[in-house]
Amino acid sequence: MDYLEEIRDAIDKGIENYLYEIEPKNLYNAVKHLPSAGGKRLRPIIAFIACEAAGGDGMNTIPFGVALELIHTFTLIHDDIMDKDEERRGKPTVHKVFGENTAILAGDALFAKSFEIASYIENDKIAKRILRNLAIMAKEICEGQDMDMSFEKEEYVDEKKFLKMIEKKTAKMFEHAAMGGAIIGRAKERDIEALRNYGLNLGMAFQIWDDCLDVIGKDIGKPVGSDIRRGKKTILYIYGYNKDREKLLKNYGKESNEEIKKAISFFEEIGAIDYAKNMAFEYAEKAKKAIEKIKDSEEKKKLIEIAEFAVKREK
Amino acid sequence: MDYLEEIRDAIDKGIENYLYEIEPKNLYNAVKHLPSAGGKRLRPIIAFIACEAAGGDGMNTIPFGVALELIHTFTLIHDDIMDKDEERRGKPTVHKVFGENTAILAGDALFAKSFEIASYIENDKIAKRILRNLAIMAKEICEGQDMDMSFEKEEYVDEKKFLKMIEKKTAKMFEHAAMGGAIIGRAKERDIEALRNYGLNLGMAFQIWDDCLDVIGKDIGKPVGSDIRRGKKTILYIYGYNKDREKLLKNYGKESNEEIKKAISFFEEIGAIDYAKNMAFEYAEKAKKAIEKIKDSEEKKKLIEIAEFAVKREK
Repeated sequence: MDYLEEIRDAIDKGIENYLYEIEPKNLYNAVKHLPSAGGKRLRPIIAFIACEAAGGDGMNTIPFGVALELIHTFTLIHDDIMDKDEERRGKPTVHKVFGENTAILAGDALFAKSFEIASYIENDKIAKRILRNLAIMAKEICEGQDMDMSFEKEEYVDEKKFLKMIEKKTAKMFEHAAMGGAIIGRAKERDIEALRNYGLNLGMAFQIWDDCLDVIGKDIGKPVGSDIRRGKKTILYIYGYNKDREKLLKNYGKESNEEIKKAISFFEEIGAIDYAKNMAFEYAEKAKKAIEKIKDSEEKKKLIEIAEFAVKREK
Repeated sequence: MDYLEEIRDAIDKGIENYLYEIEPKNLYNAVKHLPSAGGKRLRPIIAFIACEAAGGDGMNTIPFGVALELIHTFTLIHDDIMDKDEERRGKPTVHKVFGENTAILAGDALFAKSFEIASYIENDKIAKRILRNLAIMAKEICEGQDMDMSFEKEEYVDEKKFLKMIEKKTAKMFEHAAMGGAIIGRAKERDIEALRNYGLNLGMAFQIWDDCLDVIGKDIGKPVGSDIRRGKKTILYIYGYNKDREKLLKNYGKESNEEIKKAISFFEEIGAIDYAKNMAFEYAEKAKKAIEKIKDSEEKKKLIEIAEFAVKREK
C-alpha cells in the first residue's frame, strides 16, 4: 500500500470503529449508508499529512479526520434532501432509501457523532480549540448552502459573492482540515497559519475545478453538463452572463443533449472554460506558495502534489 | 425580579448576545425565529441552579445553558418538519414561515452554534467534558425521535420501550442540564452523580406529566386531546391498550370532539390517568431523593420545588 492508501485505510477503520452504534436499527442503517459507500476521504487525508508536515504523528489526527469526514457526510445528506438529488457516490441518496424524515435525523445524528468523536482528542486544550473550530466551520457551511440556495432564485450573482459562497460551502472544510492537522501536530502558530492558508486555497481550487469538470470531466459520477441542465450558478455561468447574457440564457438550464452541447460550445468560444481553469490554477499556486516557508519534508511534497493534482484530475 | 426570573433574564440576554450573526439574512431570520419566541428556558435554569446547589457560580453556566436551549430549539425545528406541525409557542413553525429547506438548515446552524457557544466555557478540561456530553446527548435525542417516529407505525409499544424513548428524547436533556451545571460548579463526582440522577428523573416526571396534561391540562397552547386526535402513543394509550384494546382503538386517533371526550372518559374510567399521574409522582419523588445527600441550601430547596412543580403544573 502506498502512503495515501495507508491513510485512507486508517480513516476507513476509524469510521467503522467510531460508528459502533446499531440501535435503533433503522436510524443507524441510514447513518452508515453514505459513510460506508466509500469516498475519497480527501479532507481527513489533508489533515493527516498537514499534521505530519508540521512534525506531528498523523495517527493522532484520526478522531479529528473521522469527525471531518462525517460532518462532510452529514452536509451531503441534508443537501441531497434540499436539492432533491437521487444519487450520490453511485448509490441512491439516504432520503431516497429511508425517506426524508429519517434522512434529516441521520444527518443530525452524524453531526452529533462527529463532535463526540472529535472530543476524543487527548489534549484538553487542543480538543477545545478543535471543537470550537469545527463548530464555526459547520456554521459557515450552513451559511454557504443558504447562499447557494438563494442564488437559484437570482438570474445573476456577482463573482465576488459567488466566490464567498464556495469559500464557505466547500473551501472552509479544507482550510480546517489542514489547520486542524497542524494544531494536532503542535505546530508553531506561524506554521498553523501557513497550513490554514494552504487548505483554504486548495479548497477554492478544488471547487472551481469541480465546476470545470462538469463540462470537461470524464466518468465523474454524473452526466456531463448536469450543472448546465440544472441551471446551476457556476463560475462558467457568471463569466458567460457577463460576456453575452442573451446567448447564455438561451442555452442554459435546458434538458436536451443538443442544447447542453451548445452551452458547452458557447463556454469554449467565449473562453469561459479557460477563465475558470486559470482561476483554479491560481488558487492552487497560492496554496503551494502558502507553505513555502514551512520546513521541507516528504509530507510537504505530498501537499504540493495534492494541490497540483486538484487542478489536473479528470474526475 | 425573583430568582427564577433573574436567571431567565440572563439566559435571554445570553441567547441574544451569542446569536449575533445576521448574514445571510434569510438563514439567520429563520435561526432566530424560535429562540426569540420565548419559552420556559427550563433546561438552562436547571443547569444554573444545579451549579449553585453544587457551590458554584451559576453565571458560569450561561454559555452551557444557552447551548442547551439552542440544541433544544434545533430539535424542535427538525421535529416540527418531520411531524408536519404548523404551530409552536403560539407562532407558525420555522418551516411554515421559511420553507422546509431553510428550516433544515436553520436547525443545522443552531446545532453548530450550540457547540461553538459551549466551547466558550473557560476551563479546558471542563469544556471538553461538557462538549462530549452534549454531543452524546444530542445523539440520544435523535435516537429517541427515531423511536418515537417508529412507534407511529406500530399498534402497540410495550411500556419499557416507551419509557426508554422518552428517556432519550426528553429526559436526557434534563439529566445533562443538571449534571453539566454540577460539573461547571466543580462539584465532587458524588454530587455530580446525584444531580445527574435528579435531572434524569425530573425529565421523566416532566414528560409523563406532559402526556397527562393532554387530557387534564388548561391553556397548554394546543387543544385538549390533541395526542388522542393524532393517535400518538402515550403512557395513557399503552395502559388503555392493555386494559381494553378494542374500546381504546374505537375511540383513539379520531377527529370529533365527541370522540375525544369519549376517549378521555375511557381513560378516566379504567384509571389510566391516575396510573400515569402516579408514575409522574414517583419519578418526581426519585428526583427529590436523588439529591437528599447533597449539602442543604436555598438552591437545593429550589430544585426540590421544581420537581414538585413539574407534576403539579396545569400547563
